[in-house]
Amino acid sequence: MATSIVGSAPPTLLHLRCPTFMHRHVATATARGVLLSLSLPSGRYRRFRSTFVTSCSAATAERPPKAEKGASDKDKRITPKSVDFSRWYLDVVRDAELADYGPVRGTMVIRPYGYAIWEGVQSYLDSRFKELGVQNAYFPQLIPLSFLQKEADHVEGFAPELALVTKGGGKDLEEPLVVRPTSETMVNHMLAQWIQSYRDLPMLLNQWANVHRWELRTRPFIRTLEFLWQEGHTAHATAEEAKAMAEQMVNVYADFAINCAAMPVIPGRKSRIESFAGANVTLTIEAMMGDRRALQAGTSHDLGDNFARAFGTQFLDEAGELVHPQQTSWGASTRLIGGIIMTHGDDMGLRLPPGLAPIQVVIVPILKKNTDTEAVLAAADSLAEAAKAAGLRAKVDAGTEKTPGFKFSYWEMKGVPVRVEVGPRDVAQGTCVAARRDRPGKEGKQFGIPLEPAGFVASMRQLLDEVHEGLLSEATAFRDANIVDVQTYDDLKAAIEAGKWAKGRWAGSDEDEKRIKEETTATLRCIPFEQPGGSGPCFLTGADAAEVAIFAKAY
Amino acid sequence: MATSIVGSAPPTLLHLRCPTFMHRHVATATARGVLLSLSLPSGRYRRFRSTFVTSCSAATAERPPKAEKGASDKDKRITPKSVDFSRWYLDVVRDAELADYGPVRGTMVIRPYGYAIWEGVQSYLDSRFKELGVQNAYFPQLIPLSFLQKEADHVEGFAPELALVTKGGGKDLEEPLVVRPTSETMVNHMLAQWIQSYRDLPMLLNQWANVHRWELRTRPFIRTLEFLWQEGHTAHATAEEAKAMAEQMVNVYADFAINCAAMPVIPGRKSRIESFAGANVTLTIEAMMGDRRALQAGTSHDLGDNFARAFGTQFLDEAGELVHPQQTSWGASTRLIGGIIMTHGDDMGLRLPPGLAPIQVVIVPILKKNTDTEAVLAAADSLAEAAKAAGLRAKVDAGTEKTPGFKFSYWEMKGVPVRVEVGPRDVAQGTCVAARRDRPGKEGKQFGIPLEPAGFVASMRQLLDEVHEGLLSEATAFRDANIVDVQTYDDLKAAIEAGKWAKGRWAGSDEDEKRIKEETTATLRCIPFEQPGGSGPCFLTGADAAEVAIFAKAY
Repeated sequence: MATSIVGSAPPTLLHLRCPTFMHRHVATATARGVLLSLSLPSGRYRRFRSTFVTSCSAATAERPPKAEKGASDKDKRITPKSVDFSRWYLDVVRDAELADYGPVRGTMVIRPYGYAIWEGVQSYLDSRFKELGVQNAYFPQLIPLSFLQKEADHVEGFAPELALVTKGGGKDLEEPLVVRPTSETMVNHMLAQWIQSYRDLPMLLNQWANVHRWELRTRPFIRTLEFLWQEGHTAHATAEEAKAMAEQMVNVYADFAINCAAMPVIPGRKSRIESFAGANVTLTIEAMMGDRRALQAGTSHDLGDNFARAFGTQFLDEAGELVHPQQTSWGASTRLIGGIIMTHGDDMGLRLPPGLAPIQVVIVPILKKNTDTEAVLAAADSLAEAAKAAGLRAKVDAGTEKTPGFKFSYWEMKGVPVRVEVGPRDVAQGTCVAARRDRPGKEGKQFGIPLEPAGFVASMRQLLDEVHEGLLSEATAFRDANIVDVQTYDDLKAAIEAGKWAKGRWAGSDEDEKRIKEETTATLRCIPFEQPGGSGPCFLTGADAAEVAIFAKAY
Repeated sequence: MATSIVGSAPPTLLHLRCPTFMHRHVATATARGVLLSLSLPSGRYRRFRSTFVTSCSAATAERPPKAEKGASDKDKRITPKSVDFSRWYLDVVRDAELADYGPVRGTMVIRPYGYAIWEGVQSYLDSRFKELGVQNAYFPQLIPLSFLQKEADHVEGFAPELALVTKGGGKDLEEPLVVRPTSETMVNHMLAQWIQSYRDLPMLLNQWANVHRWELRTRPFIRTLEFLWQEGHTAHATAEEAKAMAEQMVNVYADFAINCAAMPVIPGRKSRIESFAGANVTLTIEAMMGDRRALQAGTSHDLGDNFARAFGTQFLDEAGELVHPQQTSWGASTRLIGGIIMTHGDDMGLRLPPGLAPIQVVIVPILKKNTDTEAVLAAADSLAEAAKAAGLRAKVDAGTEKTPGFKFSYWEMKGVPVRVEVGPRDVAQGTCVAARRDRPGKEGKQFGIPLEPAGFVASMRQLLDEVHEGLLSEATAFRDANIVDVQTYDDLKAAIEAGKWAKGRWAGSDEDEKRIKEETTATLRCIPFEQPGGSGPCFLTGADAAEVAIFAKAY
């Protein structure tokens, strides 16, 4: 890994970043700049070694270990959103320490701060599922390839993205095994054994698991070869029940997005060609990112009896007839984290909704020479304790190595919703200062917050609610300002061209929809549940259309 | 899947079990016994089809859907422990609906009741880890094969058990990818990029994940191709810190086993040849199962700098020297569920420790004709509400289709620690009756429990504590009665022959240890932390031995 040539003088540690691939490397060099050692990612990056070493000599040592933990104002390195949204996103993912690249192309490591956000998502959704009577289970990850082939649409949809295990225990397998891209087939294989009578229904299952889809174009959280998700699978006695379940679950996702993640998603129905491979109907929540591209943030499928037929899942109904159950499946994934970053983030970094922030309140003691630093530290600790006792996630950043200004920038990058500052004068006055992450500078500052525990906690709760509302209303205003009502295809083209979403009456065919995609790269995101009513001419065909649809470029 | 030959008469539903493989099947037949349809597990079982159909005609229809939910006294089907422990275990796993077989040989589906036990394990361990400053993260599952080859012992240990992905997205991969059997290599690949300075240490990470090991002999929960676990990975500045961390984590496991799972495990050190492939030292907790075989229930490894060297993980220490961090890894898995079943279960089924029981208190209303059933149901509901409000996991089984006796057997099979019975006379007296699962019949019954909420909750808490203590002391007594102090090799052979554990002074070599394994099939389970002190002759070699070791047959 590290090519070490031991020199005689003590080496200088350099922190380098590969200019092409942006991976970090540690190198040591002599005082005269001779490279002594270089840590290189192994595996697939080995082929970049020579390129890298060449560019290394031209690379400048960047960010010493101290600065690693945050960015001072001078050292701010993230690309402004307005300059390059994609670069900005990758910078935030990196500098907020949310994720890193795995050694296999398209894979990612979810770092502790990113994983803590995922734990927040899990906690919220899992308790909602359980309230609805859904039980968690775990199904095997390796699925016989033949299972996928049983449902014609399903295999057609997933075949290009499969990872296959062909060897196990040193031997070639008789049949390749698919590394789970989704589990409808595996679940139905088991349901066929578990469901025998109407008394066994409804069966409401969910699993938290990893899945693999061999994507060509990847981006951390948004589209990766492997991701984490939950997949719900339910079986019902009637089509009405299954339809209601699928609707209920997309509403759970919408509720999560709006009330926990502060993402003003639009719930609706997918068009036939945008639906899940094997579903009768796919419901979705669509979110607008900061670059106005759409993100499908959660889906719920009414599968009818498609998989039940393919797998022979049958039950004896109350009338004594053997019939197929009606099924649903629904999933939300670590992609949500990407959605949160791209909905709320700004040029200072991440902005986290309080419901998901691993740290909701960070308390920075302002320690000044010749003052009672002990009293300030004690005040900061007691505030954190009061907040924690009240169920808030609070942390004191008491280190003396970094300046308060440095800490402010660091926690802004990390997206902590509320920052509390407490200095000697505050302690004397029995108050402290709070700063909201969603409002820059003085506008977001609130003075005179009581140090007294109950008053402090009440203030924090209110501020966190305000930050949630602030993020949600800002994102809602942004979304609404960027959806254009279109009457004609030219209107749509202009809206898409301007980077916006287009919303218009729609009665086109699958072919019409494909043509729009080809000509504009925009896809039909959803037919929103919320409809204007009445009818009018389809913007493309002029035919009478009872519904409006939203088209946009999407991730 | 289902071969249906539609008959003219309404079909009869039959529930069959394959006599060889014990899989359940649903079939329909005419009144004259002509098979009309048969649901068959697909995939690898396809080859049994003809065998199965042949034996079907001889198979008797077993257990109608009603009995599916439990076993009446007459219908009790689990094999007694004393008759065939292995069969008993599989019966309990099946009838308590903990797990089922997956379609790929050696895989299992964890059913909701089994998964809820796992969620209990996760909840306990995860909060302990977090208290110790460990952060959760997620590392990619697919590992370049070359990574494993970097650590010589590691690849030698794991090579025979690997599952390999060789195709992705329809193409052959340049390098096969290993489906994670454990993540030391992947973690070190990332740590080499993340750890640069002593300021970055200690780095304490954990992930909850699935792993695959291509085992030949499998058994649900105990040894499966895929299982769920947590794997902790830590890096430290000094060897002392790493050693202390490894010890701390095995103590966390021991604490969990004893205080949550009521398993009286013996913590200790593995011998060199039984240690983890790549570790300097492996610490373990060893549990005695009901058949007196040993189960390794959790391990913690001091890895030294073995992986750091292999992956070039280095940091600049306080003295300005580039050195390798010292590492640990530690894991506990769904195997624990198997351990709980085999430690506590009896001929009535599962017995769950209250700390992990998905339902701690089941309340069965005794509804009699011509009495005030409404009052009884209301009392049962209010007891459950009081228990839930106090943080206990309680459930009312109010159905009228099954008799109380049937329900008692069902919840005994499910291992619920405390059953509460409340009938019309109890309601009149303001009391109810409780039955402990750990004590059969009248001995475990307690009368006069108050219906008044606070008194009821206090009684339940006390009973649950008593059940925990009861299970733990029973298992401890069983364990201690089955460990034989041995002075000679003949003593050991006799103890192992009798199915017991042998404990004796040990100063043998690796070769001596292998010989014992070959001659007796017993392995060195651990050198317990708790030692008698002093020294004495090794039972095998006669050499002076400062320590005693435990040998036993193991899962």
